[in-house]
Amino acid sequence: MTPKNDTSQHLFALILAGGMGTRLWPRSRRSLPKQLLNIVTANTMLQDTCRRIEPLIPVARTLVVTNRAYAPLVQAQVPDLAPSNVLIEPAGRGTAPCIGLSALHLKRTDPESIMASLNSDHVILDAAGFRSALEAAAVMAERGYLVTLGIQPDSPHTGYGYIQQGEQIETIDGYPIFRVKRFKEKPSLDTAKQFLAGQDHLWNSGIFVWKVAALMDAFRQYMPEFYGQLMNIDAAIGTERENQVLQEVWQQVETMSVDIGVLEKADNVVVIPLSVGWNDVGSWAQLPDILPADQDGNVTIGANHVGIDTNNSLLYASSDRLIATIGLHDMIVVDTDDVVLICPKSRAQDIKQIIAELERQNKEHYL
Amino acid sequence: MTPKNDTSQHLFALILAGGMGTRLWPRSRRSLPKQLLNIVTANTMLQDTCRRIEPLIPVARTLVVTNRAYAPLVQAQVPDLAPSNVLIEPAGRGTAPCIGLSALHLKRTDPESIMASLNSDHVILDAAGFRSALEAAAVMAERGYLVTLGIQPDSPHTGYGYIQQGEQIETIDGYPIFRVKRFKEKPSLDTAKQFLAGQDHLWNSGIFVWKVAALMDAFRQYMPEFYGQLMNIDAAIGTERENQVLQEVWQQVETMSVDIGVLEKADNVVVIPLSVGWNDVGSWAQLPDILPADQDGNVTIGANHVGIDTNNSLLYASSDRLIATIGLHDMIVVDTDDVVLICPKSRAQDIKQIIAELERQNKEHYL
Repeated sequence: MTPKNDTSQHLFALILAGGMGTRLWPRSRRSLPKQLLNIVTANTMLQDTCRRIEPLIPVARTLVVTNRAYAPLVQAQVPDLAPSNVLIEPAGRGTAPCIGLSALHLKRTDPESIMASLNSDHVILDAAGFRSALEAAAVMAERGYLVTLGIQPDSPHTGYGYIQQGEQIETIDGYPIFRVKRFKEKPSLDTAKQFLAGQDHLWNSGIFVWKVAALMDAFRQYMPEFYGQLMNIDAAIGTERENQVLQEVWQQVETMSVDIGVLEKADNVVVIPLSVGWNDVGSWAQLPDILPADQDGNVTIGANHVGIDTNNSLLYASSDRLIATIGLHDMIVVDTDDVVLICPKSRAQDIKQIIAELERQNKEHYL
Repeated sequence: MTPKNDTSQHLFALILAGGMGTRLWPRSRRSLPKQLLNIVTANTMLQDTCRRIEPLIPVARTLVVTNRAYAPLVQAQVPDLAPSNVLIEPAGRGTAPCIGLSALHLKRTDPESIMASLNSDHVILDAAGFRSALEAAAVMAERGYLVTLGIQPDSPHTGYGYIQQGEQIETIDGYPIFRVKRFKEKPSLDTAKQFLAGQDHLWNSGIFVWKVAALMDAFRQYMPEFYGQLMNIDAAIGTERENQVLQEVWQQVETMSVDIGVLEKADNVVVIPLSVGWNDVGSWAQLPDILPADQDGNVTIGANHVGIDTNNSLLYASSDRLIATIGLHDMIVVDTDDVVLICPKSRAQDIKQIIAELERQNKEHYL
C-alpha cells in the first residue's frame, strides 16, 4: 500500500450547501437555492459536485452541511447519502463555524481524517484534473499543511479574493506547491490588473484541504473563543443535551470566514495553482464564460428564443415561454414561471438591489 | 326639425374590425387581435369605439364588419348589436372592398344613409369632441362631399399617410372645412418635418364620412371593375344564391385601399382638422403618448414591476408575473402568458421581423 493510497482512505469531502444563492435570482430562490438547481447541466449543482469527486471520494466519505430547510432536498437529490452524513447547521455563521462543526463529526468518524472542504455551487469542467489536484493537496494535508486551491486567473476579476504565492516548497505528482505569501480581499480593477500582470496571484476558490486535527489546532490557536465553543458542543455530542447545547452555543458564535479567522493568520498555509475550468457561477454574467455561444455570441439555456439583431446576450429560461428580442446587446434575460429579469451583463451584480427593493415592498414571495 | 338633426337620423357607423393587429404582438394574436383586446382601458378597443359614438349613433345604427373567425367575439363583446348588424367579409381585400360590401347593406337599410367609417382599434381621448366633428362631417357628407378627418400632427411621424389641405370652403359648427389638395404616402423623416413646419398637412386618420350614394357613385367612376362586382353581389342579396355569389365574386376582387382607389382620384374630397387625442396605437411605442408616465418616465400597464435605474420604458403585462429590470432605458417589455417581448422603443416597428421569423420556424401558434 503506497502512502498516497493510504491518504486517500482518510480523505473525506465536506460539501457546503447552506447558501442562499441570491445572485442567480430569480432562478435561485430562498426556498430552492442555486446549489439545489440544475443551472448549467441536467443535474443540480450539488449532484454535480458529488459526482465529480466520487471516483476519489465515495459518497460514504462525503458529508453535506446545510440548514434545516434544505436538508430534505439534499437527501432527495443525493439519495445514497446516509442521513448521518447530512449535517445541519442551526444558523448561518460563515464558513469557519460551519467547517468547525463539521470537523467535530469527522474527527469522531476518523481521527486521522483529511477534510476537503468544497462548495456545492461551483462549476469545474475538468473533473479528472480536479481530483488529481485534490490528491496532491491531500498529500500536503497529511503532512500538516492547510492547503488552499488557487485558480489561475485569466482576467482581472474584481469579484474574487486573491492569494499571493510565496516560494515553492514542493512538487507533488507534478503539482507545484507554494507557500501563501498573503490573502487579499476583492481588489479594485487597477489592483486586479496588477495581480494578473504579476503572475503570482491566484483566485481564492474557497476550496481547502486539511487534516481535521491540523484544523482543530488552528482553531485553538487563532480562534480560541470559537474553539472553546466547539469543545462545549463536542462534549455534548452523543448525549441527550446535544441539540440543546448546539442551539445555545450557536447563539453566541461569531460570524467568521475560515479565510479571515484561520488562513490569514496561520503560517502553515500552502496553495496549489489549478487550471480545471473552475467557475463559481457568482452571477448570471459568468454563465457565458462556461457555456458555448452561438454565432451571434448569444448563450441560450433552456430558452425558446427568437431574436432580431440580438447578440452577446444570455437568454436563460426555466419556463417554456417564448423570449422574443429585438436590438438586444450584452444583456441578460432570465425567465421563470413568475418572474422575468432583464438587465445588462455589466449590472448583474445589482440584482441585490432588486432583492432589497422586493424586501422593502414586502414581496418576499418572489425571493 | 333642423337640417342637422335630420342628418343625424341617417347617420350610421361602420366599424372595421377585421384587422390582425400584429404590431401589438405578442398581446395581439391572430386568434384575438388588438381591437378585441383591452389594451388601454378596461374595455376592449371595439367596445370603446362603440361607446364613444353611442350618444350620436346608437348601436341600432352601428354596423361592424369583420371576418368569420372574429364574428362570435364581436357579438359577445357588443351584445346589443343585432346579428344582422355584424357583416362578414369572406376575406380581407383592403378597405375599399370592405367598405363597398358594407355600403350595399346600408343602402338597403336606408337609401339616404350617411356612413361614418371608423376603425375599431384607435384611441380617441376626447369622445365628445370627436362626436361634434362627426356631426360637422355628416353635414358636409349630406351635401355630397367625401369627408376625411385629418389629425393635427404634433410630431413628424413617418408611420402615417398625410393629407395636404387646400382652400377652406366652409365652416360648420366652428369646424373649418378644407378641400384636399393631395394625399401623401408615409413620408421620410425629412419630408415629415417639412409637413409639420408647413402647418398644412394632417395625418390621415382613416376615418371617413360620406353618403352611401356618393360613395357608390365614386366606386362607379374610379373603380369601375369593382363597382361591377359589387352590383353582381347586390343583385344576389336576399336570394338563395347570395352566399355563393359573394364567395365567387370575392375571389376576383382586387385588394385596394379606399384612399388609393377612390379618395386620391375624386374631386369632391374635403378634410376636417381634428384635435381629439387621437392615436391609432400602431405600435407599442405609441402607448406612452396616451398614458401617464411615472416620475422615471416609465409607463406601466398591468405590470407588476420592480425597476432599478429603469426609465422612459413601457412595461406592459397581461400576466401577473413580476418584471424586474436593471439599467433599462427607452425599452419596451411586453409580458404575456406564453411570450415575453423585449425591444427598444425605436424598434417597435420591427416586431414584423419577429412575426416573419416565427412563420419561417413554423411557430405559428405564437402568432
